[in-house]
Amino acid sequence: MSDFLIDEELLAAIDMGSNSFHLAIARVDHGEVKKMASMSEKVQLAAGLDENKNLTEAAQQRGLACLARFVGRLTAVQSNRLRIVATNALRQAKNGHEFIQKAAEILPKPIEIIAGREEARLIYLGVSHTMANSGRRLVIDIGGGSTELIIGEEFEPIHTESLQMGCVAYTKAYFADGEISKSSFEKAVVAARKELYSIANTYKEAGWDTVAGSSGTIKACRQITVNMGWSNEQENLTREGLEKLKDRLLKFKHVSEMEFDGLKEDRRAVLPAGLAILYAVFDVLDIDKLVYSDGALREGVMYDLLGRFQHEDIRDRSVQALMGRYNSDPKQAGRVVKTAQHLFDSVAESLKLNNEDSDLLRRAAYLHEIGLAISHSSYHRHGAYLLQHSDIPGFSQIDQNYLSHLVGNHRRKLRQDAKTEALKAGGNKIVYLSLLLRLAVLVNASRSDAMLPAIELSIRNAQQWQLSVSGDAKQWPLLVAELHDEQVQFKNWDIELNIQSEQFVD
Amino acid sequence: MSDFLIDEELLAAIDMGSNSFHLAIARVDHGEVKKMASMSEKVQLAAGLDENKNLTEAAQQRGLACLARFVGRLTAVQSNRLRIVATNALRQAKNGHEFIQKAAEILPKPIEIIAGREEARLIYLGVSHTMANSGRRLVIDIGGGSTELIIGEEFEPIHTESLQMGCVAYTKAYFADGEISKSSFEKAVVAARKELYSIANTYKEAGWDTVAGSSGTIKACRQITVNMGWSNEQENLTREGLEKLKDRLLKFKHVSEMEFDGLKEDRRAVLPAGLAILYAVFDVLDIDKLVYSDGALREGVMYDLLGRFQHEDIRDRSVQALMGRYNSDPKQAGRVVKTAQHLFDSVAESLKLNNEDSDLLRRAAYLHEIGLAISHSSYHRHGAYLLQHSDIPGFSQIDQNYLSHLVGNHRRKLRQDAKTEALKAGGNKIVYLSLLLRLAVLVNASRSDAMLPAIELSIRNAQQWQLSVSGDAKQWPLLVAELHDEQVQFKNWDIELNIQSEQFVD
Repeated sequence: MSDFLIDEELLAAIDMGSNSFHLAIARVDHGEVKKMASMSEKVQLAAGLDENKNLTEAAQQRGLACLARFVGRLTAVQSNRLRIVATNALRQAKNGHEFIQKAAEILPKPIEIIAGREEARLIYLGVSHTMANSGRRLVIDIGGGSTELIIGEEFEPIHTESLQMGCVAYTKAYFADGEISKSSFEKAVVAARKELYSIANTYKEAGWDTVAGSSGTIKACRQITVNMGWSNEQENLTREGLEKLKDRLLKFKHVSEMEFDGLKEDRRAVLPAGLAILYAVFDVLDIDKLVYSDGALREGVMYDLLGRFQHEDIRDRSVQALMGRYNSDPKQAGRVVKTAQHLFDSVAESLKLNNEDSDLLRRAAYLHEIGLAISHSSYHRHGAYLLQHSDIPGFSQIDQNYLSHLVGNHRRKLRQDAKTEALKAGGNKIVYLSLLLRLAVLVNASRSDAMLPAIELSIRNAQQWQLSVSGDAKQWPLLVAELHDEQVQFKNWDIELNIQSEQFVD
Repeated sequence: MSDFLIDEELLAAIDMGSNSFHLAIARVDHGEVKKMASMSEKVQLAAGLDENKNLTEAAQQRGLACLARFVGRLTAVQSNRLRIVATNALRQAKNGHEFIQKAAEILPKPIEIIAGREEARLIYLGVSHTMANSGRRLVIDIGGGSTELIIGEEFEPIHTESLQMGCVAYTKAYFADGEISKSSFEKAVVAARKELYSIANTYKEAGWDTVAGSSGTIKACRQITVNMGWSNEQENLTREGLEKLKDRLLKFKHVSEMEFDGLKEDRRAVLPAGLAILYAVFDVLDIDKLVYSDGALREGVMYDLLGRFQHEDIRDRSVQALMGRYNSDPKQAGRVVKTAQHLFDSVAESLKLNNEDSDLLRRAAYLHEIGLAISHSSYHRHGAYLLQHSDIPGFSQIDQNYLSHLVGNHRRKLRQDAKTEALKAGGNKIVYLSLLLRLAVLVNASRSDAMLPAIELSIRNAQQWQLSVSGDAKQWPLLVAELHDEQVQFKNWDIELNIQSEQFVD
């Protein structure tokens, strides 16, 4: 990308859905995300999962070709103002890593696989920013591989769930040959009901004032019922309309025969499955009608990105929430953050670390003690487990994996294989950030502001670090021993840590 | 044990410490535990850990011989009124399992390895019940392998910590040949200070009014300083006395030369190491004096046992605390508990399950959803992780392991290897209780009181279970499908689940 083309006001999102890939480019205008351009391609990634849950070569090629076309449209977008998120098909694919590596060669940024709950949160963000406020809202999004259901008020999601059912997956399971029958439709509805059952009571108890739906399935169903005059309301998808659509659908024997005013060709194959899921949702949750919303995951991703630039980064709120849940000592976390940032600033340039790396280190420093809530013994590992597995709003699975590496390596022995894993997860920067966090934690072992020595870190080259410590050595009698232990650990990760001190006696 | 000898009022505890094993037998008298008999043997289990942290054959034989002698004194004690707890040496031993299996052949109950924090809690319980109340108290117990430090008020511990330092371990590390030198003493003190550093600020901030010490090390140091007239207070161990003891100790060149009025022979070898730890504790925590307490781990174990009989089971409070921390839905937990107990009562006799098994099932039912706080996906596994690794007051590591198996197997596929692990952990009862919990969870999938069918479980033989379901089948359309899935899972664990129902249509 050539610099002179970049427009500071642009944001972009790529949503690699299980059915379609979408690209949206928007301009920030008075704090709002105004869509400028969009592109969608029906890649049907989920349909390309074989029986072992591996993405077939053909599906990977479809995906890569689509991404290459999208990249052609991104020349004017700064790479830190772009996010590329992947959902259920890549969550499920056993060889997803392989696909992501291939894609890395053509994309300006890594693909982030996001968890179901995070997808639900972002969908809600997209819908709530593109519709008028209307009290408590239920939002439904039927994707290719998963269906998200969210209850929220204004811009705040209250319940977020992602269920394992989608129009591509259900097409494969119940309408694989394109044949339509009452019995296969009924089976699909029963399966969807079963998934919905797990959340039905909680959602009904929480309640809502209005229902909004996004996604291609809902858009198509609304379009057909409105076009066919089956909806008694101008724009909304009603239960009555849905019943009529179902009755008509079951008159056809095969998807190739279906005739509906407003049905797009690329929706044809997955309509029966999508309708079955939507029908079950209306049924189990007692819905009368829903309003279609054009905002969806990609809009949510852009609003989330915008928030990050406006210092309303949801990730920082999530970090605070985790510290609260696990009752972390905020004073000690604050001390470690302060030291870590000081160390980071001295070496960022030499080690080619950027602002995102600084955010990562800061968040890991805030969270490094959360595992103590589980047990003192091996608490760094418990912290790593929690960061790896928790639903954390705003974080992709890659982000969480990074955090997990930093926290899991912040104390005790540094094993060589832990370095290999860290490199595999995120390259050298994860190694460097882990070591910076270790030093910051070590220096603050006294858990006191008073006893801190002055420290300076400099980098001779990536494999030779120099730490200078000065002050009254009597104040931190243990630091001598600890720093010498730490040299051994750094050596395990192939870095020489030189320690310079006026007061230390070796 | 012959029944006619059993005394309903007796309680007993065996404490398998890293230095000594202790047996205490007590009678319950007006709600108090009155010690009737006690026995101690210096087994020095920790000294028998080889460089690979395996217990040597000789150390195992010493331990087993001692346990056999203890068993001879237990004929009058009901086995459910006895607890056998093991601490740091068995926590550390890689072949601890092997030793426990050998011990099982001679003991009336299994050995429970308890975590460091649980040990600290029980020590506090023992000390606080045997001393007059005196405001906020710091309790110190220097064991053979670990040192426990607790701050509490009345019978409630506030901070509990267990540090990796003890008189046997430090003797091995710093005084292995019996030689005493200023430099080896200083090294031991520095190592102990390093451990204490991690808690010093938290403890000092919390503060205390009085200090109490238990354990053989503290008893010996107090005895010597009082006998030698080094203490300016009649009964207390003072800082001044400790300084004098240290100075005198360092005049000797070898433990065999030490001469102190009041030093018992079996304390001789570990006194320098124990004193170094105690000296570091006084120093880092700024202690002036401490009162010796005769109550310790074994008294705590008996008070804890007494609480269980008096329906003040600390474990139930811990279960409630975990549900609170992880924000579990109490209504759903209550439903599952109710169903689980109903199922349990119908089959307990046939499956030879006892009251402790009922407690275990009830607690697992309360806790089965705690993993949801981490993530919806695989939440049974997150719950199992939390139960395996958390410090949970009142539970031994075996208890936690049982809970972890039940919760980890409560949903999704039952793998054959999960059965093997469950059998290894606790035998058939863990298999049966896991399956009872599954059924209870499955029947309550609707998360509603209204939709519950009537169910009855009966056992033809351990491998053939019969479940009868009756009521209005329309109320639970999914149960049919779920129960048939469940038959497959039971089969994976070699149990045939027959389902009888008037209303279900297959």
